[in-house]
Amino acid sequence: MKQLIDDLNWRYATKKYDSSKKITQTDFETLKHVLSLVPTSNGLQPYQFLIIENPEIRAQLREKSYNQSQTTDASHLIVMCALNSIDEVYVDKYMDRSVELRGLNPADVEGYRNHLKNSVAKADAGIQLRSNAKQAYIALGQLLQTAAQLRIDATPMEGFSPEGYDEVLGLKEKNLTAVVVCALGFRSDEDAFQHLKKVRKPAEELFETI
Amino acid sequence: MKQLIDDLNWRYATKKYDSSKKITQTDFETLKHVLSLVPTSNGLQPYQFLIIENPEIRAQLREKSYNQSQTTDASHLIVMCALNSIDEVYVDKYMDRSVELRGLNPADVEGYRNHLKNSVAKADAGIQLRSNAKQAYIALGQLLQTAAQLRIDATPMEGFSPEGYDEVLGLKEKNLTAVVVCALGFRSDEDAFQHLKKVRKPAEELFETI
Repeated sequence: MKQLIDDLNWRYATKKYDSSKKITQTDFETLKHVLSLVPTSNGLQPYQFLIIENPEIRAQLREKSYNQSQTTDASHLIVMCALNSIDEVYVDKYMDRSVELRGLNPADVEGYRNHLKNSVAKADAGIQLRSNAKQAYIALGQLLQTAAQLRIDATPMEGFSPEGYDEVLGLKEKNLTAVVVCALGFRSDEDAFQHLKKVRKPAEELFETI
Repeated sequence: MKQLIDDLNWRYATKKYDSSKKITQTDFETLKHVLSLVPTSNGLQPYQFLIIENPEIRAQLREKSYNQSQTTDASHLIVMCALNSIDEVYVDKYMDRSVELRGLNPADVEGYRNHLKNSVAKADAGIQLRSNAKQAYIALGQLLQTAAQLRIDATPMEGFSPEGYDEVLGLKEKNLTAVVVCALGFRSDEDAFQHLKKVRKPAEELFETI
């Protein structure tokens, strides 16, 4: 896995993109394919990924992102949104899909269906959103790793106003909250950050063996 | 990247491990190497990974994990903990390391140092823990992807008592909260779940292009 380690060392949070360079459709399909396979709590995929192509909307989002240029200059911009809540209808849809795909007997999974309804769907909204947001970060991790493996630059961004994003994208009506944004594309030669060494804790601080 | 997609399709949340099979030291070092490179908010790596080798402690953690057998039967068990809080000392240590590694002039990053102290280190404890927990999920995503690429089985686990883990591992004194657990090893031939199809949303529900 030397290649993977090289790829992960190659990546960095890109500050300045070369806006003339675009991700190929094939590579972007790979990134979407990986996102579609990300494992989540109970398999519920409690998120949606908004791919922002419209340049005017990207300009509006830049205003809600402390004017960070990545929002407009990167080849692609993905707004990773958590579902605000999961209801019984959502659980039923998931369970019905599961029954169909796996050829299960519905009666055999009735208990699990009820368990999801009573645990996940009945949790209060704040708890649900926090849990759903964490699942989106699993996706972020895999997106960043895959981008690096494709030698596509990326910038995970938390520096934005979720309320501002809601305003621009009408997220509330979609039952969504923007939790993290990922710009993807190709670094500008002028981005000095690409030459800086990675700063990481030594292994003895990061790991403890018990 | 067909290989990556194959690897991600191969993986599943393993329910039953073959306890006789162990991950090689080389592969485990690769997993640790990837974990050490995971990108995090402001680069602060606000987490610690506890690698639980002691079989008695693993048995105790099993009791705090609804008796799930992965905790004791998998080759390796990593308890992924978020830091409860980051203080000014932590920020200074990070910034000093950054200055040294990157050969920076401390005066040039004084503003950033103060920004981190005033924003991150002064946020209230609940907000800090929630933010730090999300960073641990980026690490989880990359751990799961790398394990799949090494054809090592894995189980991300949220079904445990954080209070129980604190009791067994003395996490509070370490300024830690267990946020997610990852068992790693090799699937048992008897685990029927390996034969089930993956249940995932269709692309038109998962993505929206704007």
